[in-house]
Amino acid sequence: MDEAEPSTRIEHAGLTVWFTGLSSAGKTTLSDAVSGNLKKLGCRVEQLDGDIIRRHLSLGLGYDRKDREENLRRIGFVAEMLSRHRVIVLVSTISPYRAIRAEMRGKCKSFIEVYVDAPLEVCEERDRKGIYKRARKGELSHVTGIDDPYEPPLSPEVTCRTDRETVEESAALVLEVILEKLRSK
Amino acid sequence: MDEAEPSTRIEHAGLTVWFTGLSSAGKTTLSDAVSGNLKKLGCRVEQLDGDIIRRHLSLGLGYDRKDREENLRRIGFVAEMLSRHRVIVLVSTISPYRAIRAEMRGKCKSFIEVYVDAPLEVCEERDRKGIYKRARKGELSHVTGIDDPYEPPLSPEVTCRTDRETVEESAALVLEVILEKLRSK
Repeated sequence: MDEAEPSTRIEHAGLTVWFTGLSSAGKTTLSDAVSGNLKKLGCRVEQLDGDIIRRHLSLGLGYDRKDREENLRRIGFVAEMLSRHRVIVLVSTISPYRAIRAEMRGKCKSFIEVYVDAPLEVCEERDRKGIYKRARKGELSHVTGIDDPYEPPLSPEVTCRTDRETVEESAALVLEVILEKLRSK
Repeated sequence: MDEAEPSTRIEHAGLTVWFTGLSSAGKTTLSDAVSGNLKKLGCRVEQLDGDIIRRHLSLGLGYDRKDREENLRRIGFVAEMLSRHRVIVLVSTISPYRAIRAEMRGKCKSFIEVYVDAPLEVCEERDRKGIYKRARKGELSHVTGIDDPYEPPLSPEVTCRTDRETVEESAALVLEVILEKLRSK
């Protein structure tokens, strides 16, 4: 989680930025970069990382559809609350289901969906947590992209092709859309 | 949960105010009154009510010690996060264990413990949720004060005797301590 004390502070509305994509697509890396940029601007930012949230709010939940949905609703509950208090909330979690992402969009007053897109082969090559390897060996099930579905966003506000863009390029795209959204209030 | 848009807004630090006490001791009633007073002052306030949080963050958890502790840690996690973003967080939940309340105090940078104190007989008479009646009939177990322990705070910042004070009197006591704490920053 983030420190919430930037050196300067500007007035801005709250906002939920939802990074969705396969494991190892680069969601957390991108969220980190965007968070750094926003803090430099003096914004109040909080990162809700799927893995960290699971430890703090969803111990005992698994990875079948029902449990994933429950986990995502918990993240959405916290994100909505923070964003109501004028925090820019950066959520990074696979969130494979279109319906639940739409539900989160409906709940959060101001919402940006970022599709962190990289081909499965690239993600599998990166395999930061070793889950693809384990899935291929049959040691792990419910792995998104392997034996569990991923439903790509149909009309995300931003798509970042992390296999073709640098982190800085992707972060700049996201930042632009965030600032645009904040200006439009 | 609260609306986060008071008509005026003042600058203040974040703070977690933790209301602990038996079921029907008056925690939520008191939290509502304090929340109203703080909003009139233009503060950013969020109420985390134990029952509501259970629905949103802790479906599937029960009432044995382990599950209660996990539930309280989740509330603490959210409270800490909100208070880092300068929200005054009012937590109302039985939170029967001294150790876990101490843990929450340790986690939150700024913390006030409010002991919402009313004798068990009074709480049982009120029995807003009907749980004491069900416990006495043997239909419900793990009811704090009946077959589950409640460990009263040893040195809470505020004690409210809700059987002797009006809600307004109790709320005024809590408000005074909150404002004192905010001034001391």
